[in-house]
Amino acid sequence: MKFVLAPDSFKESMSAAEAVAAMERGIRTVFPDAECVGLPMADGGEGTVDALVAARGGALIVAKALDALGRPRVARYGYVADERLAIIEIAAAAGIQLIDPADRDPRNASTFGVGQLITDALDRGARRFVIGLGGSATTDGGAGMLHALGARLLDANGRDLPGGGAALARLARIDLAGFDPRLFDATFEIASDVTNPLLGAEGAAAVFGPQKGADEVMVRELDAALTVYARVLAETTGYDVAGESGAGAAGGLGAAFLGCFDCRMRRGIEVVMQAAGLAVRLDGADYVFTGEGSVDAQTLRGKAPLGVAEVAARADVPVIAFAGRIGDGAEALYDHGFSVLVPIVAGISDLSQALRDGPRNLERAVATVCRLLALRASGSARPGGGASGDPLGTDEPAAR
Amino acid sequence: MKFVLAPDSFKESMSAAEAVAAMERGIRTVFPDAECVGLPMADGGEGTVDALVAARGGALIVAKALDALGRPRVARYGYVADERLAIIEIAAAAGIQLIDPADRDPRNASTFGVGQLITDALDRGARRFVIGLGGSATTDGGAGMLHALGARLLDANGRDLPGGGAALARLARIDLAGFDPRLFDATFEIASDVTNPLLGAEGAAAVFGPQKGADEVMVRELDAALTVYARVLAETTGYDVAGESGAGAAGGLGAAFLGCFDCRMRRGIEVVMQAAGLAVRLDGADYVFTGEGSVDAQTLRGKAPLGVAEVAARADVPVIAFAGRIGDGAEALYDHGFSVLVPIVAGISDLSQALRDGPRNLERAVATVCRLLALRASGSARPGGGASGDPLGTDEPAAR
Repeated sequence: MKFVLAPDSFKESMSAAEAVAAMERGIRTVFPDAECVGLPMADGGEGTVDALVAARGGALIVAKALDALGRPRVARYGYVADERLAIIEIAAAAGIQLIDPADRDPRNASTFGVGQLITDALDRGARRFVIGLGGSATTDGGAGMLHALGARLLDANGRDLPGGGAALARLARIDLAGFDPRLFDATFEIASDVTNPLLGAEGAAAVFGPQKGADEVMVRELDAALTVYARVLAETTGYDVAGESGAGAAGGLGAAFLGCFDCRMRRGIEVVMQAAGLAVRLDGADYVFTGEGSVDAQTLRGKAPLGVAEVAARADVPVIAFAGRIGDGAEALYDHGFSVLVPIVAGISDLSQALRDGPRNLERAVATVCRLLALRASGSARPGGGASGDPLGTDEPAAR
Repeated sequence: MKFVLAPDSFKESMSAAEAVAAMERGIRTVFPDAECVGLPMADGGEGTVDALVAARGGALIVAKALDALGRPRVARYGYVADERLAIIEIAAAAGIQLIDPADRDPRNASTFGVGQLITDALDRGARRFVIGLGGSATTDGGAGMLHALGARLLDANGRDLPGGGAALARLARIDLAGFDPRLFDATFEIASDVTNPLLGAEGAAAVFGPQKGADEVMVRELDAALTVYARVLAETTGYDVAGESGAGAAGGLGAAFLGCFDCRMRRGIEVVMQAAGLAVRLDGADYVFTGEGSVDAQTLRGKAPLGVAEVAARADVPVIAFAGRIGDGAEALYDHGFSVLVPIVAGISDLSQALRDGPRNLERAVATVCRLLALRASGSARPGGGASGDPLGTDEPAAR
């Protein structure tokens, strides 16, 4: 028996890696000798580094990087040396989760730290990158990252601009003379579910600025600054990416990648699945187990289990999805590659207990499913009759 | 596909028949054409009549009978005409559930109504009886029943005794001259999990009297009266049943059956399973579904699902048990014929909601299990490889 274990995290209950471990324990209860391939999933956001490091046998690297407010800190990224592959979540440096709500400063927040992480990886030998966009505190169009990588962002007087999106209003020229030449040999896979353009009503400032602390005035100021930036960037590189899908992701960081890097931007789960090698690991698999905290109609909007189910269905491997909550509309998933949806909560419990018991509940649910699958492995016998159906044990034939 | 559905009731949530219906709905979601044999189970107590009427295609009969306090009421029993088989729960007439706690009267409570139900069934043609003992309000040794069937219980002056256990202290003679002669042609299967003798510290008065309202003085009085009764009954019939296992069941009603009837007393689930024809209905079955409200270490003490599992295991049919609660020690059931234990609660809920949602939860859990079993029916495909494992979609071979 071969199982591929490809869950997303069960939010607030367990990481994807913990879910894989719980699944494997449950399987071993019933099939001690089964082959278990653990491929924790992620959607390009939190958990992406852990998932791909686990899937490809890489290492976790700790590097110095400034956060969005310019404060020194250490950030983690993943590195697979024999593939020269770095996996970076931009939130590890420029993440909003690193900043207290009271300290948020969307005008000055910078992606400089992201560039530092890329430099660290280049130093290590990386030439292929998987970048998880999302969770940024910034609206600087990726200007900070470009600066960290050797670009100069200059005002009309030839002076370097300070970091942050607001200063881009004074941008006159981008000087790429000092841009790290190793980047010309590097390829980038950008994981992003955001398809917004850089500017305007659907742009980075208008749509994502408010959740980063921007009020209405700041949103207008930042959108105007990014408009200047987009024009100068297009003049510098020779093509205009402002209107491209995803240019507005991560406060416009998407635009910097699209404009200055050899990159491809796709949905997070697709990038992760491909980088994890899901399709090839399915070879010879009897079952795929996936799952996440909640499975419902929203799952059809591109969440990790859907991607796993689609890939597995193409390979004709049954997909069993485990979830803490199976919500309204989940039945629709049976039309999208899912073979079975299994709830993991067993018995009366409140939410906090269910979250706490997540790993144990998942382990038990997996063991229960495996017992049912074991009926398959052994084949169900067909009894040959011979039992007496007489109700009172006499010799009369049974009436029915 | 053939399924045998043999659940007990899910206490406070659904009857065994309702559980069967929910199971069948769940199965039909996945296997619309499956053969479903519904055999609601019971342990000889409440639900026994419904279970066997359903299993054997009988009718529910409504008959007049006095309750334990002598109040007229109507009681139900089951009748299968073509087998001349009556199924009677003694609690339908002499049940403690019919009497307000404030009105309980263990000294005078009588099993007269049980005899009336037997008479009604004899009139209808019954010559085979399944009797569910248990739930009685009485401690009269079955004297009331014998009286209703034509026996006379006389004091030293040849006067009929009034009903109830306490009066038996004055019993001098039992006159069976008027005993219904049809009873000599009748056989009785007595379903009882109680193995207590009639008298003494483990007897009917001492062990079960208190829960019927007897204080310490009454317990001594009733035990002394039953001692007189036992002696006179032995003189009348020629053999002494007071020490036999089960003589103390239902306030000593067991002794009357053992002493005066052609009867066999066995564990309730065994009587019900045999009367329902479980073993013969298993012929050709792919799976047996059973279940009850709570499955745990107690289930090994002879509850209905255990009996079902044992019979099914002998016939080599996998048994899947569904339960609202799977408690401590349930794993031990895997050594006793159970193939899989499946919790039916799916998600966060409190007890009252879980009880209310029981049928829906059971239906869903059964559907989920059937989807897993359907993987078996269709066979899981083995993908032939060919997918690219390269993380970044280039032509380089995958590293792992």
